[in-house]
Amino acid sequence: MSNYPLLETVNDPADLRRLSRPELRVLADELRAFVLDSVSRTGGHLSSNLGTVELTVALHYVFDTPADRIVWDVGHQTYPHKILTGRRERMATLRQWGGISGFPQRAESPYDTFGTAHSSTSISAALGMALAAQQKGEQRHAVAVIGDGAMSAGMAFEALNNAGVQVGEGSRLLVVLNDNDMSISPPVGALNRYLAQLMSGRFYAAAKHMGKSVLKAAPPLFALAKRFEQHAKGMVVPATLFEQFGFNYVGPIDGHDLESLIPTLENIKQLEGPQFLHVVTKKGQGYKLAEEDPVAYHGPGRFDPAVGLVKPAVSPVVAPRPTFTQVFGQWLCDMAAQDQRLVGITPAMREGSGLVEFERRFPERYYDVGIAEQHAVTFAAGLACEGQKPVVAIYSTFLQRAYDQMIHDVALQNLPVVFALDRAGLVGADGATHAGAYDIAFIRCIPNMALACPADERECRQLLSTAFAQNQPVAVRYPRGAGAGVAPLPGLDALPFGKGEVRRTGHRIAILAFGTLLYPALQAAEALDATAVNMRWAKPLDAGLLLQVAAQHEALVTVEEGAVMGGAGSAVAEALAAAGVVKPLLHLGLPDAFIEHGDAAKLLALQGLDAAGMQRSIEARFGAAANRPSVSATGT
Amino acid sequence: MSNYPLLETVNDPADLRRLSRPELRVLADELRAFVLDSVSRTGGHLSSNLGTVELTVALHYVFDTPADRIVWDVGHQTYPHKILTGRRERMATLRQWGGISGFPQRAESPYDTFGTAHSSTSISAALGMALAAQQKGEQRHAVAVIGDGAMSAGMAFEALNNAGVQVGEGSRLLVVLNDNDMSISPPVGALNRYLAQLMSGRFYAAAKHMGKSVLKAAPPLFALAKRFEQHAKGMVVPATLFEQFGFNYVGPIDGHDLESLIPTLENIKQLEGPQFLHVVTKKGQGYKLAEEDPVAYHGPGRFDPAVGLVKPAVSPVVAPRPTFTQVFGQWLCDMAAQDQRLVGITPAMREGSGLVEFERRFPERYYDVGIAEQHAVTFAAGLACEGQKPVVAIYSTFLQRAYDQMIHDVALQNLPVVFALDRAGLVGADGATHAGAYDIAFIRCIPNMALACPADERECRQLLSTAFAQNQPVAVRYPRGAGAGVAPLPGLDALPFGKGEVRRTGHRIAILAFGTLLYPALQAAEALDATAVNMRWAKPLDAGLLLQVAAQHEALVTVEEGAVMGGAGSAVAEALAAAGVVKPLLHLGLPDAFIEHGDAAKLLALQGLDAAGMQRSIEARFGAAANRPSVSATGT
Repeated sequence: MSNYPLLETVNDPADLRRLSRPELRVLADELRAFVLDSVSRTGGHLSSNLGTVELTVALHYVFDTPADRIVWDVGHQTYPHKILTGRRERMATLRQWGGISGFPQRAESPYDTFGTAHSSTSISAALGMALAAQQKGEQRHAVAVIGDGAMSAGMAFEALNNAGVQVGEGSRLLVVLNDNDMSISPPVGALNRYLAQLMSGRFYAAAKHMGKSVLKAAPPLFALAKRFEQHAKGMVVPATLFEQFGFNYVGPIDGHDLESLIPTLENIKQLEGPQFLHVVTKKGQGYKLAEEDPVAYHGPGRFDPAVGLVKPAVSPVVAPRPTFTQVFGQWLCDMAAQDQRLVGITPAMREGSGLVEFERRFPERYYDVGIAEQHAVTFAAGLACEGQKPVVAIYSTFLQRAYDQMIHDVALQNLPVVFALDRAGLVGADGATHAGAYDIAFIRCIPNMALACPADERECRQLLSTAFAQNQPVAVRYPRGAGAGVAPLPGLDALPFGKGEVRRTGHRIAILAFGTLLYPALQAAEALDATAVNMRWAKPLDAGLLLQVAAQHEALVTVEEGAVMGGAGSAVAEALAAAGVVKPLLHLGLPDAFIEHGDAAKLLALQGLDAAGMQRSIEARFGAAANRPSVSATGT
Repeated sequence: MSNYPLLETVNDPADLRRLSRPELRVLADELRAFVLDSVSRTGGHLSSNLGTVELTVALHYVFDTPADRIVWDVGHQTYPHKILTGRRERMATLRQWGGISGFPQRAESPYDTFGTAHSSTSISAALGMALAAQQKGEQRHAVAVIGDGAMSAGMAFEALNNAGVQVGEGSRLLVVLNDNDMSISPPVGALNRYLAQLMSGRFYAAAKHMGKSVLKAAPPLFALAKRFEQHAKGMVVPATLFEQFGFNYVGPIDGHDLESLIPTLENIKQLEGPQFLHVVTKKGQGYKLAEEDPVAYHGPGRFDPAVGLVKPAVSPVVAPRPTFTQVFGQWLCDMAAQDQRLVGITPAMREGSGLVEFERRFPERYYDVGIAEQHAVTFAAGLACEGQKPVVAIYSTFLQRAYDQMIHDVALQNLPVVFALDRAGLVGADGATHAGAYDIAFIRCIPNMALACPADERECRQLLSTAFAQNQPVAVRYPRGAGAGVAPLPGLDALPFGKGEVRRTGHRIAILAFGTLLYPALQAAEALDATAVNMRWAKPLDAGLLLQVAAQHEALVTVEEGAVMGGAGSAVAEALAAAGVVKPLLHLGLPDAFIEHGDAAKLLALQGLDAAGMQRSIEARFGAAANRPSVSATGT
């Protein structure tokens, strides 16, 4: 017999809306169990999804989805939403090649109204939807569901600020603040602290007065009464910030209590103008292990729910290769120990960027600025003005949020800020939204910027040291996960700035590799008896080495894990043109397309960026080398 | 006899700090007169500088500059600061080639602690400086001076939010909110509305209690008293937002009254932790014409202060050529009249982007979202999801602020948003901070994006119509000012998507022009008997035309007003490599360097991007054409 008898009758939210309140409670419990079981089989985000079970049920119950629009900020908390909107069976394919995405995707379902993944976009998008409905004379609602972390980003503030004046009669915008961060880490921003205050001071009082507070029968009188009431409460905690932005604030309410959620949402649904509902939830709710350690269960791999996550101590004979993230984290600590000027900055990615140990050892030089990439970079510029040496640890894809700050505040003033770009290239299960495919193109065009592309772990450490030694801004890009397994050297020696190296000398063809694809390129070079060059720097390009290699070979091939358009291969083409050298050239790299989620190695192979694919492409263009074996089709 | 006897004795702020209070008043009056006289001779920003005279005097009087750091947000209001910090004589060279910048520049003066121009960076930078001082055990202050418009950008919020928890004992950060926007335009954000409330409710009350409010002798008791006091005031207006962010809020005070400013700043200077001073000033203060029309006097050219700005009606026989901005504004109105789905969006650039008439005629489809580029783009994405056709009018340089939103929210979902990129290329007097030099490189690498580069006014209108007709995101880039003077056609016909055209058929060499440099390229082609091609699209590149032209010529030359690195010329190199075509290639465009302010035509000539320069470069690479005349060195 099924473990999910009620859930299996819900194939879309219309089915859900036919259930009674007591049935909804049962449904929520089944949904939670299903999420836990499903994620334990596929891996994926857990804590956040356990936290949104009741909120998801309530929103689909109260609102007429998909006619009403729900925009889920960040979107990794949408597994309950996916399960309730016709994708229950497909959860087994989550985040796999050809399977459903770990984030909402417009192409996947009409219930996914807006693709999200990077944080803090939901209010802007929902405001656009609300005003479009108004312009078209449609009565639909637009609901943004945003976490407290995402709320601290500037973009969310811009949207709140604008919505407060744009949303009037005839447009219906609801912002649901899903406040769940309180128990995890110390507040990194004043907003977190403020929300904690709101919660402690107003939770129960507000819950009791809910009916009265929401329904406003006689507006002017009610407004006056409300003002007094607020300021009476205000003696305990201040009047709410969100009201100052023009929103009607309701809450905080218990986000795991359908008996609070549903009536409150039903009341709010009747109101025009900008509405704000503050919901308090618990990450990992209902699964004790995740409740106790929501960070560990934020994005686990597969596990046995009955046992929980186990430390990978099963085969201690083979030490796992360190990830580039770990190599960076170790370098950061070592360099900080040597140089008092080093300051480490992360926009809310302490774990992901490898800063846990650095924070522990150097708390006074560690800054988690929250989800605030723009601020992170200009804050670093300010520190650099005073002679400090900031290192901004940031994912390639999130640096897109601070592009202007990199140009206008760092590069234009030629300030020595180091950018440690993690997750450069394809990222696997997180998919197109998180791919670091564009950084070579968008950084290379900025004057004063330098950009290093280490080929392996050892070189990553060396190039970080090189970057740190420069008196100009330098970015170092490295991919997700582990590399070729070349152990870093313990020292902090730099490599020559802007210089590459020949790694294999062959004939006819020279393969110029930028970054970790050097290793499959070396295999392909072996098979083709080609030369292989580790270029190391996308900028400055080692033009001397390039021209020397160009003179000695019939043709050049560039290889990079980044967009070909504007990428490092393009830099080679420009340098050849600038020198007046005319030479056959083949660019290998990521195509001009967004690449969906899937196993990272498989995705690279699909793009022809494993050794066999490189060999194929080179032979297709320049012909096969005589008497050389082919590299195996399984690549590296 | 000098008009500025006291001012001429002030060669740096130390001189100023020796003056008596009555002398400071005289100094401020002379400074205001000097600013007016100076700007009337050179052009530049006026209203904002007249508004900051007393604030500048007071800050340099109270703080020990340059040891204490003042960061001026946006920075176009720093003329009084420049005059008082040793650059009085050089004001005659303002914004001219080789002269001083219209913005603060670190290279220009030790008093310019941080280069600004794009808004809302000052709090982040000053926070970096304050925390660096703390780390280094230095006692210096860091002061950010930010306008109310700039305060509405997300980046300022990120910095406030972070500063509220990072700045503690031992670090000294003061944010001065220079609130001056109230009288100009209707509030575009809730924050503006909120500040207006604050001001009306608290101005006089706060001024009276200043001494008491600022000095806190016995902190715990004081805090309690203050809380009660605030909430008493709160019955009129809410408790201040800035206190909720952890700042000690003081104000609002009269920013033109040295007797308020100096004692208040002196009091605040004694306090540790994050301080916030709300100062109210009037744009154009002291010059009646500018007070009455601060928008017109925001950035005037030369004028006679006794007469004021005059409408350019002197020679009505020759109608001035319309700027690209005007061509866009007219197109937007015409297309809006034809298509109800069109929505126009500007991040606080109504005048600069040519939306004044559009707002007048289509107010219900016009959105000024404030200085909020990130929100502007994702808001457009939300509208596009619902079938509206948003047009985001934005300067190329400011689109850098919304780069991630363009990738993640628009392009990834392939939403039909039109980006009208004004000020693409060099911008003249505003200099490096405002140059739109990178958009070709940073847009071209994004899948699904298209990018058109009209060669003249007629084509600009046609390509905007083409962009609007697509079911995908398209950017159209056009430069500041007027073009070749080709009058737009009245219709709204589109050109073929992604197709260029041969404009002149010659021999040996083909010049491929992207954008308005087609016209000097045509002159150079004439002189060289070369072929000239109007490529029109940087993406998609017209590969068919390219390969055809490549087959018919010995060498190719690309021309663009944008960075060569990653630019349209690079796209040509990539397309040739992809097709396996090997052909000599010369890239002409902007170099890998930040280019300072100066006359735009002169700057282009200095980069070899006038007709004579192109001819020189082409001849230097490929040899001179026989029996052809040289184009004149004066170029176009």
